[in-house]
Amino acid sequence: MSDFGFLPPFGSDNYAPAHPEVLAAVGAANDGFAVAYGDDPWTARLDDCVAALFGPGTRAFPVFNGTGANVISLMAVAPRWGGVLAAADAHAHTDENGAPERIGGLKMLTAPGSDGRLAVADVEAWAGRFGDVHRTSPAVLSLTQSTELGTVYRVAQLRELTEAAHKLGMAVHIDGARLANAAAFLNVGLAEITSEVGVDLISLGAAKNGGLLGEAVVVMPPDAAPTEAAADARRLAAESIPFLRKYTGQLASKQRFIAAQLLALFGGDLWLRNAVAANAAAQRLRAGVMTLGGEVVRPSRPTEANAVFVTLPRTVADALRTRAPFYDWAGGETPDRVEARWMCSWATTDAQVDGFLAALADCL
Amino acid sequence: MSDFGFLPPFGSDNYAPAHPEVLAAVGAANDGFAVAYGDDPWTARLDDCVAALFGPGTRAFPVFNGTGANVISLMAVAPRWGGVLAAADAHAHTDENGAPERIGGLKMLTAPGSDGRLAVADVEAWAGRFGDVHRTSPAVLSLTQSTELGTVYRVAQLRELTEAAHKLGMAVHIDGARLANAAAFLNVGLAEITSEVGVDLISLGAAKNGGLLGEAVVVMPPDAAPTEAAADARRLAAESIPFLRKYTGQLASKQRFIAAQLLALFGGDLWLRNAVAANAAAQRLRAGVMTLGGEVVRPSRPTEANAVFVTLPRTVADALRTRAPFYDWAGGETPDRVEARWMCSWATTDAQVDGFLAALADCL
Amino acid sequence: MSDFGFLPPFGSDNYAPAHPEVLAAVGAANDGFAVAYGDDPWTARLDDCVAALFGPGTRAFPVFNGTGANVISLMAVAPRWGGVLAAADAHAHTDENGAPERIGGLKMLTAPGSDGRLAVADVEAWAGRFGDVHRTSPAVLSLTQSTELGTVYRVAQLRELTEAAHKLGMAVHIDGARLANAAAFLNVGLAEITSEVGVDLISLGAAKNGGLLGEAVVVMPPDAAPTEAAADARRLAAESIPFLRKYTGQLASKQRFIAAQLLALFGGDLWLRNAVAANAAAQRLRAGVMTLGGEVVRPSRPTEANAVFVTLPRTVADALRTRAPFYDWAGGETPDRVEARWMCSWATTDAQVDGFLAALADCL
Amino acid sequence: MSDFGFLPPFGSDNYAPAHPEVLAAVGAANDGFAVAYGDDPWTARLDDCVAALFGPGTRAFPVFNGTGANVISLMAVAPRWGGVLAAADAHAHTDENGAPERIGGLKMLTAPGSDGRLAVADVEAWAGRFGDVHRTSPAVLSLTQSTELGTVYRVAQLRELTEAAHKLGMAVHIDGARLANAAAFLNVGLAEITSEVGVDLISLGAAKNGGLLGEAVVVMPPDAAPTEAAADARRLAAESIPFLRKYTGQLASKQRFIAAQLLALFGGDLWLRNAVAANAAAQRLRAGVMTLGGEVVRPSRPTEANAVFVTLPRTVADALRTRAPFYDWAGGETPDRVEARWMCSWATTDAQVDGFLAALADCL
Repeated sequence: MSDFGFLPPFGSDNYAPAHPEVLAAVGAANDGFAVAYGDDPWTARLDDCVAALFGPGTRAFPVFNGTGANVISLMAVAPRWGGVLAAADAHAHTDENGAPERIGGLKMLTAPGSDGRLAVADVEAWAGRFGDVHRTSPAVLSLTQSTELGTVYRVAQLRELTEAAHKLGMAVHIDGARLANAAAFLNVGLAEITSEVGVDLISLGAAKNGGLLGEAVVVMPPDAAPTEAAADARRLAAESIPFLRKYTGQLASKQRFIAAQLLALFGGDLWLRNAVAANAAAQRLRAGVMTLGGEVVRPSRPTEANAVFVTLPRTVADALRTRAPFYDWAGGETPDRVEARWMCSWATTDAQVDGFLAALADCL
Repeated sequence: MSDFGFLPPFGSDNYAPAHPEVLAAVGAANDGFAVAYGDDPWTARLDDCVAALFGPGTRAFPVFNGTGANVISLMAVAPRWGGVLAAADAHAHTDENGAPERIGGLKMLTAPGSDGRLAVADVEAWAGRFGDVHRTSPAVLSLTQSTELGTVYRVAQLRELTEAAHKLGMAVHIDGARLANAAAFLNVGLAEITSEVGVDLISLGAAKNGGLLGEAVVVMPPDAAPTEAAADARRLAAESIPFLRKYTGQLASKQRFIAAQLLALFGGDLWLRNAVAANAAAQRLRAGVMTLGGEVVRPSRPTEANAVFVTLPRTVADALRTRAPFYDWAGGETPDRVEARWMCSWATTDAQVDGFLAALADCL
Repeated sequence: MSDFGFLPPFGSDNYAPAHPEVLAAVGAANDGFAVAYGDDPWTARLDDCVAALFGPGTRAFPVFNGTGANVISLMAVAPRWGGVLAAADAHAHTDENGAPERIGGLKMLTAPGSDGRLAVADVEAWAGRFGDVHRTSPAVLSLTQSTELGTVYRVAQLRELTEAAHKLGMAVHIDGARLANAAAFLNVGLAEITSEVGVDLISLGAAKNGGLLGEAVVVMPPDAAPTEAAADARRLAAESIPFLRKYTGQLASKQRFIAAQLLALFGGDLWLRNAVAANAAAQRLRAGVMTLGGEVVRPSRPTEANAVFVTLPRTVADALRTRAPFYDWAGGETPDRVEARWMCSWATTDAQVDGFLAALADCL
Repeated sequence: MSDFGFLPPFGSDNYAPAHPEVLAAVGAANDGFAVAYGDDPWTARLDDCVAALFGPGTRAFPVFNGTGANVISLMAVAPRWGGVLAAADAHAHTDENGAPERIGGLKMLTAPGSDGRLAVADVEAWAGRFGDVHRTSPAVLSLTQSTELGTVYRVAQLRELTEAAHKLGMAVHIDGARLANAAAFLNVGLAEITSEVGVDLISLGAAKNGGLLGEAVVVMPPDAAPTEAAADARRLAAESIPFLRKYTGQLASKQRFIAAQLLALFGGDLWLRNAVAANAAAQRLRAGVMTLGGEVVRPSRPTEANAVFVTLPRTVADALRTRAPFYDWAGGETPDRVEARWMCSWATTDAQVDGFLAALADCL
């Protein structure tokens, strides 16, 4: 708690509660007996739901969390000796304590990226470097959308990256823990930034966008794959994931309670409403900082999704932090200044944003 | 669904819904913002809860499911080259698709057991067999309580097994997916079959006993360990598990929603009420079978927890199965007969039991 | 050393030196510079050598030892969630300290076997049991030839086992650490017990049969595979193994020195001469035991390759052991008697056998 | 082969043959029967040998190759969730196809380094960053000596790096595939750049310096450790390695043949003679380049061990390459120029160097 009388949400979008509609859906799913391990009506409806969203033949595999979704996705499209090309600040590289390496036996191959985004050149740099038994080459390109730095790949960028990756035989994965925020920012549907640009499979986030817990690996339809190799990769992924999910400990016995959440979010427009709200809170926060800050506190990254990155004096940050906790971004600091990450969520209110800005002003 | 107008619960105790009190607790926890990844008030209260149950210094680590709880527990007390001594029908050996091997890098070392229970001789058989670099020896004894075959280790058996294991330097783990059912059968508290007999750590089950999803690894207090080696193992386990839990994908971002369930179950007597109900349903079912069956359908194992194992003609089983699904037990079949496992849960009603028995009678 | 003035070889065929022709071949290969990591003339000749032995299109991949050969073979034909069906006393299960599990992420699925040999029924028992995500099913059948118990599968048995395995979609691997001894016993060529009966890939042993160190994974030609699935498995194995071999630490920088040994053994008849000698020593030893023993010391297994298993009084075994070390076979003991394994090698002399028999007589 | 009538050795020091004294030692070890798996007299003498070199209580564990030595070393001193701090061009990061990640479950944490050398600041940058369950922190510092770029850490640098690492609780490992070349350059003994500066364990290279195949993990004496934590790490490593070595497939059955090579190299001064020769060849090559080159071909790194790095026009490199194969160094290229790595070995002759320089002149 803080001196606002509430815990301000700016530390993480994971601090937010679940949306009431999600909670209600879980309650509604708690209706009598249902077959375990995914052979239940909610899970069946989820396949219909993702088919409607991403195209017929799409498959959804509920899992417990983003680490699970990412690791299973990457294992499903990489051979045992495969690597994963990702931005150096990708969550799977920096924040999952080596899960891809230790659970998936995968090697992360990173490029610095720009504000969290990889460029086509980062992919094309691998041309001619496959097949060396001594060195890992990437079997899959993993893009984070929206990125860890609060930016969003544009539709055309995604298409170009996907084409470049497929051309080199890589599959394409999106870590979509905040996919909804990207779609909301771009004002497009989820398909337009995934299946329609050729992405093969995604980690579809729910927890950060109003869920209790649970995400899904979504495998796009093999029939709609842009290349034959991508079609094979999707087919193999859909066959493999049930086994991978089981032994990685990501198969829920009472899976209906995850499926019901995903249905509540993605069966209608709740995913969008929540993302719009989170993004709007971030814009309000950024605007307030701009008003306040001058040179002392200033945004350090574009604010496109639900994160506001700012640099500010270390003393100011530390004073503010005691009243409303948040994290600094490793690597963005200088002796005198830090780079802070302020996250907004679907539940962040205008009053919270304004209170936080007032506290910041107070610390300056 | 079935011709009863409902899905009968006898296939698995995982078919049951969550108990309303558990659901209500999740709803109550959905109250504003809370720090993520376990730094929340519900998780803090859970440590108090397990300290009250198992003794001061006990630590609880919420995880997503039983596979996660088992794998993390076993990794936490075994070196990289360690083995796990378990009954041949232990869930971790037969039903987790190699999770201990593939995620934990552990080798399962099994003994046949009797109705799911290992004997002290199974442990002592390892005396003098440690230290061979060519052969895996057990670093940990993993007991399932209640067992996969619906039986329950007695308090004295547990003490003897634990002593034998500690004497040989093994740690002792209990897979307690159905620990509550064992305590209810024995009419003892949870500590009397775990911490008080020297067990080092347990997978504490919630989902099968009225939860939505979620379990906990519970590490017993080092100070109370019966041997110095066990104290070290517990200490090391408590230090290791936060890291192991993260990279195995078992750390929930909104952990309060798992902690709240565990509090609802174990903070009062709900765990016991649910287990008593499930066990009673099994006894009613067994009694009905005895009345019915004569030699044709007959219990094949003691019914001590919430499972009734019977052998019956394959034709009868297959007829009954179409009306009320259940699983056969691999290994218990002959050309003419199968061994069926009928599971009861906290939510199984007398009407369901009686309806099932009527259907069985009908098929004979 | 022992009181014979030499170390008797009966503990293991690994106690033997390398055959002089093998050593000479290594010396001959030490001729100037050669490209590293297998791009050398000796390795190229080895592919020709195995093509001549097993058929055109056969590929040989030198590795360091049997553990490496087995793990790489099994990984190459099993998906990440695959299992390995093997006899309970298979070396990969009992004597590699969990290498298949820990390095390959594979689960061992065992059947007891008879004197080390699996039966077709052990394979067919898996019919109808594939596809369950909870339980591991075998992706590969691994047969040991000659077996750990000194017996030899007959050609017809191998054909039936391979057909049964292929029918269920399993690949077929032979752990051929002592393949030469089997061929010598059966008086057939190596192909007749591998490629010609449909086996997909083998661990081809060298060290125990006169080598210094080094073995090879040999993948049979896809074109000659008996089923389409087997052809795919072989093709995929040949593509995968170079990468698997590298990251499992089994790729020699100066690979010529392993290839040269394999050429020395398998490029001519040295493999056969050595195996004939080892088998003959075992027969001499067995005959001597029969003469001696009566009921006190008696062979406990058929002696078909280079191992003699006997049961004898524990006191006699322990007396003899101090003069000429050997190992007991775990599981074959009673309170009063042990089962001893006496191994012969290519280098075992008649004098050694006779001396050992005399020592045994002395201990009776 | 090349137009020199021989294969020039400049592609890799692994192209070189074994030194005749090493080969002779293997021949001498091929003397009758010896107990397998390291319980032989040669291995026993090797422990004496390393005790003489590095101090009483030093332990040597022969393995097959550098990948094995590195992976086992790092696993031996890192917990399951540990990371490895290394230079970005460390062999274990770039040239072992993910072996540390896939076999050891370790995450590589890299710093760019300067000409292959890390600085104390790279270690100290981790201060205050341990204990976060989301992020891997380094359990071990792995230094390559001499480095992948042909440079050599000075004694004082090693001492400072080791102290900084120990201060933060890291163990210190040296990848010593070319340790001998570093000692020769510095004109010090092996202990002065390992045990005497506090290093905990090393991969002691043999193959590149005149061996056939085989290396050793050498664990420094716990009693001589500079900190209590380092002493514990060494003790634990020495206990763990026999088990790790077995299941990673790095335990030779006829280990005498590796031990004999190590004795031949390190029991006298052969390691030094070979390294001196290799280094001298590199200096001759560099001097020749300087004479020749002007601005067109110029050394790009200090030449301190047995590697000469140069930049030269891509057209020249490709012309020269057809006559005498070598590798370019990834990352050192521009559109017009490449960075080439020319390796010298113990067996590189003056005539070879001069011939290569003449060929280079010819291509300019």
